Amino acid sequence: MTTRDLTALFDPKSVAVLGASNDETKYGNWMSVQALRMTGTRPVYLINRRGDSVLGQPPLRSLAEVDGAVDLVAITVPAHSFEAAVEDALAAGARAIVGVTAGFAELGPEGRALQDRVVDRVRSAGAVLLGPNCLGVIDSTTNLTFASNPLPGGRVALLSQSGNMALEVSGFLQSRGHGFSRFASLGNQADLGVADLIDSCVAHDGTDLIALYCEDFGDGRSFVSAAAAAAAANKPVLLLTVGGSEASVRGAQSHTGALTSDSAVIDAACHAAGIYRVTSPRQLADVAATLLTYGRRRVHRVAVIADGGGHAGVGSDVVEANGLSVPRFPTALSTALRPLLPPSAGVTNPVDIAGGGEQDIGCFASVLDAVMSSAEIDSVLLTGYFGGYAEYGEGLARDELDVAARIAAIAQTHQKPLVVHTMHSASKAARVLIDAGVPVFAAVDDASGALAVIDRGTDPRPLPSLPGTAEKPLSSTDYWDARELFRAAGVTFPEAKLVSDAAQARAAAESLGYPVVVKAMGLLHKSDVGGVALGLSDPHAVAEAVEGMRHRLNPPGFCVEAMADLNSGVEIIVGVQRDPRFGPVAMVGLGGVYTEVLADVAFALAPVDSGAARALLESLRASALFTGLRGRAPVDLDAAARAIAAITEVAVTHPEITELEINPLLLTPDHALGLDARIVLDNQPTH
Amino acid sequence: MTTRDLTALFDPKSVAVLGASNDETKYGNWMSVQALRMTGTRPVYLINRRGDSVLGQPPLRSLAEVDGAVDLVAITVPAHSFEAAVEDALAAGARAIVGVTAGFAELGPEGRALQDRVVDRVRSAGAVLLGPNCLGVIDSTTNLTFASNPLPGGRVALLSQSGNMALEVSGFLQSRGHGFSRFASLGNQADLGVADLIDSCVAHDGTDLIALYCEDFGDGRSFVSAAAAAAAANKPVLLLTVGGSEASVRGAQSHTGALTSDSAVIDAACHAAGIYRVTSPRQLADVAATLLTYGRRRVHRVAVIADGGGHAGVGSDVVEANGLSVPRFPTALSTALRPLLPPSAGVTNPVDIAGGGEQDIGCFASVLDAVMSSAEIDSVLLTGYFGGYAEYGEGLARDELDVAARIAAIAQTHQKPLVVHTMHSASKAARVLIDAGVPVFAAVDDASGALAVIDRGTDPRPLPSLPGTAEKPLSSTDYWDARELFRAAGVTFPEAKLVSDAAQARAAAESLGYPVVVKAMGLLHKSDVGGVALGLSDPHAVAEAVEGMRHRLNPPGFCVEAMADLNSGVEIIVGVQRDPRFGPVAMVGLGGVYTEVLADVAFALAPVDSGAARALLESLRASALFTGLRGRAPVDLDAAARAIAAITEVAVTHPEITELEINPLLLTPDHALGLDARIVLDNQPTH
Repeated sequence: MTTRDLTALFDPKSVAVLGASNDETKYGNWMSVQALRMTGTRPVYLINRRGDSVLGQPPLRSLAEVDGAVDLVAITVPAHSFEAAVEDALAAGARAIVGVTAGFAELGPEGRALQDRVVDRVRSAGAVLLGPNCLGVIDSTTNLTFASNPLPGGRVALLSQSGNMALEVSGFLQSRGHGFSRFASLGNQADLGVADLIDSCVAHDGTDLIALYCEDFGDGRSFVSAAAAAAAANKPVLLLTVGGSEASVRGAQSHTGALTSDSAVIDAACHAAGIYRVTSPRQLADVAATLLTYGRRRVHRVAVIADGGGHAGVGSDVVEANGLSVPRFPTALSTALRPLLPPSAGVTNPVDIAGGGEQDIGCFASVLDAVMSSAEIDSVLLTGYFGGYAEYGEGLARDELDVAARIAAIAQTHQKPLVVHTMHSASKAARVLIDAGVPVFAAVDDASGALAVIDRGTDPRPLPSLPGTAEKPLSSTDYWDARELFRAAGVTFPEAKLVSDAAQARAAAESLGYPVVVKAMGLLHKSDVGGVALGLSDPHAVAEAVEGMRHRLNPPGFCVEAMADLNSGVEIIVGVQRDPRFGPVAMVGLGGVYTEVLADVAFALAPVDSGAARALLESLRASALFTGLRGRAPVDLDAAARAIAAITEVAVTHPEITELEINPLLLTPDHALGLDARIVLDNQPTH
Repeated sequence: MTTRDLTALFDPKSVAVLGASNDETKYGNWMSVQALRMTGTRPVYLINRRGDSVLGQPPLRSLAEVDGAVDLVAITVPAHSFEAAVEDALAAGARAIVGVTAGFAELGPEGRALQDRVVDRVRSAGAVLLGPNCLGVIDSTTNLTFASNPLPGGRVALLSQSGNMALEVSGFLQSRGHGFSRFASLGNQADLGVADLIDSCVAHDGTDLIALYCEDFGDGRSFVSAAAAAAAANKPVLLLTVGGSEASVRGAQSHTGALTSDSAVIDAACHAAGIYRVTSPRQLADVAATLLTYGRRRVHRVAVIADGGGHAGVGSDVVEANGLSVPRFPTALSTALRPLLPPSAGVTNPVDIAGGGEQDIGCFASVLDAVMSSAEIDSVLLTGYFGGYAEYGEGLARDELDVAARIAAIAQTHQKPLVVHTMHSASKAARVLIDAGVPVFAAVDDASGALAVIDRGTDPRPLPSLPGTAEKPLSSTDYWDARELFRAAGVTFPEAKLVSDAAQARAAAESLGYPVVVKAMGLLHKSDVGGVALGLSDPHAVAEAVEGMRHRLNPPGFCVEAMADLNSGVEIIVGVQRDPRFGPVAMVGLGGVYTEVLADVAFALAPVDSGAARALLESLRASALFTGLRGRAPVDLDAAARAIAAITEVAVTHPEITELEINPLLLTPDHALGLDARIVLDNQPTH
């Protein structure tokens, strides 16, 4: 996908509102009011088809009455007039259109057809369309205010599919002292999608961070590439989305009919793109405020510094409950802290300043400096009373402000994130911290929640380039053919022979060695219908199994396979499914009966290379099973990772496969062995 | 434990401060300033040993100069004068003492000895002591302000071991419109413990809810009884504590040296007592505000009502991520909602009002009423924009206030919790809701977090009365003796015989039937040293096993046991450990290799009856294994529950047992079978 030129959208030479109005209940009025704020920067034309003078501006019935070209046009007319309005805009030379009008794809197929027609028209004219069904666009670096509400200037680009969400995020960010470089309301993403807008923000000097509220990701792979490019350009991308519950999927489908992706798939996409996924508008603002100051940093090993045992304990608990670590300090650090603090202080992590603040408030700075100097500590949570010492008198009040400035500087010097929770978040000392970029929180939950989101963040991992598509698409999904396909890709299976009757089966078993497994071919769910016989340990059992299957299932053939010893290893499941947005997604999980019971599974966009495959295995809750528990030998994780990588590559080179699975893949100390395989092709019934 | 009479502490006839001061940096000054606010209610005496007039009051060198008895005395003198001050107070007739002075048990054994001496003296005088090392006491129902800071009046009793935590909790509660019936700073709990103070609050008419910040629970069983009594009296108890992380345990031990209990044990205690455990001061206030209006209610099935698709989706995701359910509405309810809302509205749960608010803001009330009328819905989260409609004009502003009052009334009528999240939490409509008792949140995280804590809350479960102690304490913990003890209590084991040599072992095996297991007696960790031989299937193998063990371990005897088929069931682990605070605690978990890997375990105060035992089993993440997965027969959960109950009863009737374990307990469709047993006695080495 080539980057679209969005200059006319974010930095137009001139703008017009089609559907401007004096009626204060209309969007055409609100937008016109905001548009007029740009008058000093660029010509603003307010078009009203009845020829009313809107907001005291010269009356204009149509764009044709405007002298010269109009670069950016907002259309707020009713849906039935929208297509004609787009034609007028293009005729007037518009290079960008903001479609505020609603009533298109979100209402059903008819609306979608109209919307598609308009998009074709806009594209063939070489213009771009934001929306329709959107609320406008703002760029504070070009003085563009082309939406119903102004937003404070700042360094965050906010791309949102919901007006109310944008307002709420904006409120939380403002209260943390931040504002917006850009705002774009995504609407139906008929032409410009979220990926295009991210691309454009990556190239935008005024933007340091990109915040997304998005339900529909369009082409998921383009979205991932765009976000990964932003992360690589040191512009963190934060995503708030829905789909984490059946209820929100139900809701999203009912109100937009958009294709939704499973929340685990979105997590996998975020992982690949280095996106920080947040769960609420407040958390978005908390994380943004922290990243804007410190950038992408390691934060996992947190030092907790508190003035009081209660805050030390509660802070430590909340931090660890969020999946971060509050490690015991190295002895040398504790020893170094001891002389800085009263005798009753805690110096092991958490640090309990224990009244040291009243005696010498400078101890906050010296303790912070010592702690941040440790290579064993990545970030610091200061929690408790700081900001309240001013209440002890004027001297302490002055000192507290000095110390606030010093601790902000110390964090900058060490380039380690400092987050502050204080009961006195509205104090002057807190203001000094905030002005110096230190995130200050009124609740310790939010301070450690922000660190936790950053901790879970990953570096963007370039997706392995897709291998070419296989020359010959699959036609059969028989077990034998699936097995051969995977074997060719490098997955090991037990030795086996394809036979057609009991006599051949017996001969095969003799040559493979007992016990063996017999599987009937030509059946998708062969286990469920008695098409698999395990543990056959003599010729008679083999013949009986084959005859029984022939009688019941009449399969086209049988696979006789050496039987692996399940007790010698750990069973996992490896699969790939095709997501409507994000394409093939790999799944790795604990196998056997525990697949269902524990749902201990991990996902990644496919294909995964063997490094990523190993990381998936290690991310399972039960990963300790792989490293040799209770005296067992560890399994061969390299072989496992290679097998997983090969399986995902099969899925990707065969786009006709909608779903495949090796279950179980038996991991032993020596190898990874596929014990069953299943492939489902496009349009093939799955049962 | 009998309830102590705390009248003199919370409603004294007269009060005195020993150590009153004009020095504004001293606690004796701050407390005196607050104490003088009571002057209209009761005599207040400020004692300064130099005879200064403090804060303009008549100078008093000692309590002896006061006419008549002084009911309540606060002591703020230095530690070395504390004991003498207590004597003076008792001599002056004090029935209650508030020990503000620090420097006792928290500093070490010497301080503890002094503290113990003082407590003996106070108790023998028939008085009570709060603290020492505490910050005072407040009772807004008796106009008692005997602490360094005033607190707003209200319905919450706050008992806190940390001054800063109390201040922070108080700040959050105040901002939610609530205040305090009582505040007591727990300090070292040398005489009065948290259980005594809870008891007293249960009997206190002005208290509707009890909030605790507590690190040391004293006698844990008394604490549980007191809290359970409060819950039974419809006074919810909320607990904020530490110990959820290694770090906070490290911190607590370093600053108080108090015995700490494992966080899972505290959870078990909360479960038994019906305590709501919270993780932060803000969450405490959020949950308190919700419980104060609605009381203890079922909230699990949440209806989400939003004005906008984004808020509907994010609200649903956050609610479900918190462990609550957002179930699809019954069809009849969706049908009933349809005519109340615009065509594009979502009516399945979440409800997306989709612009209905602008058209007729009354729809919030009609939708809420319809939703709350459903027997399938327990509680409602209203999330989004409500409170912001006032911005659309005066008419809508007026209507919005009416609707706010109506929705508060609807929640009261249905007696179902309504929590509101709004971007406009400082609006007039929000104020109407808050004044009517509806909790209003600026962030949806907090609204659903409060519901989640209430959802996890349990009804207090009276602990089964402790059976009498066994007549004869155990002396041997040999496997055979342990097995016999459990068998006598009703636990089933495989048939077995105790033998002393190979010949007897062979005979035993013949009579039991092969395969058998041979276990060497007299070893605590017999498996680890080769004292267990499994799957012996012929006389030769039995003899060889016995001879091998005799040679290596020379045990006093052997147990020959019929071997159970492990493939026929699910292995669990059942144990009881003695917690220093809460006594015997039962543990039930998934057994085998998964015990370690998954840590899928549940705890309860012992003994547990079979109902509670079954609930423990069903609370395991892997509980689906018990109900018959993939065509297996379900295990006999009743037998399992009876066995667990019996095992915990053994632990309780034998207080000399510090630790016992049956691992595995094999659950099959027919029975629960103990396959190994281990008992550790007091003072017995565990390795």
